[in-house]
Amino acid sequence: MTELVGYFAAALTTCSFMPQAWLTFRTRDVRGISLGMYSVFTLGVALWLAYGVLQGAWPIIVANAITLTLASVILAMKLRYRNAERTTSVP
Amino acid sequence: MTELVGYFAAALTTCSFMPQAWLTFRTRDVRGISLGMYSVFTLGVALWLAYGVLQGAWPIIVANAITLTLASVILAMKLRYRNAERTTSVP
Repeated sequence: MTELVGYFAAALTTCSFMPQAWLTFRTRDVRGISLGMYSVFTLGVALWLAYGVLQGAWPIIVANAITLTLASVILAMKLRYRNAERTTSVP
Repeated sequence: MTELVGYFAAALTTCSFMPQAWLTFRTRDVRGISLGMYSVFTLGVALWLAYGVLQGAWPIIVANAITLTLASVILAMKLRYRNAERTTSVP
């Protein structure tokens, strides 16, 4: 039962970044997205992945590998599209 | 060593939501923030908290209680400010 709650929790927090990645890819609107958040979060998830590898815990490895990919993509879009945001924000 | 990596990972992924909450609070720009992401993520973190309680694992409880608070605040701001976003997006 507890295991099941954990797997369900992992599935939700991992999948949640899919709609964000898709929204950002579609709209390229990155003004409301925090660079600080995605920098720190991506680093944190990379460490979770390292933790999973050190523990040999496959559920942690798989969940964090997927989250790391999605978070990296969002971070890359933030870095790429923020220049565009600067030019368009000037009236 | 492995424990330390885990604690550091938890600290980073938890704290990462602080700059996002602050940015959203300051700018009220929620257009680029995915409602789907924060709905699913908040639910997922609530389940992680339940998992921590079921396991009696304090590090999981503490980290997810803080993340749940921050994610809920961001979700609430998304819900609150998206009406404003509708009126201002019309030229």
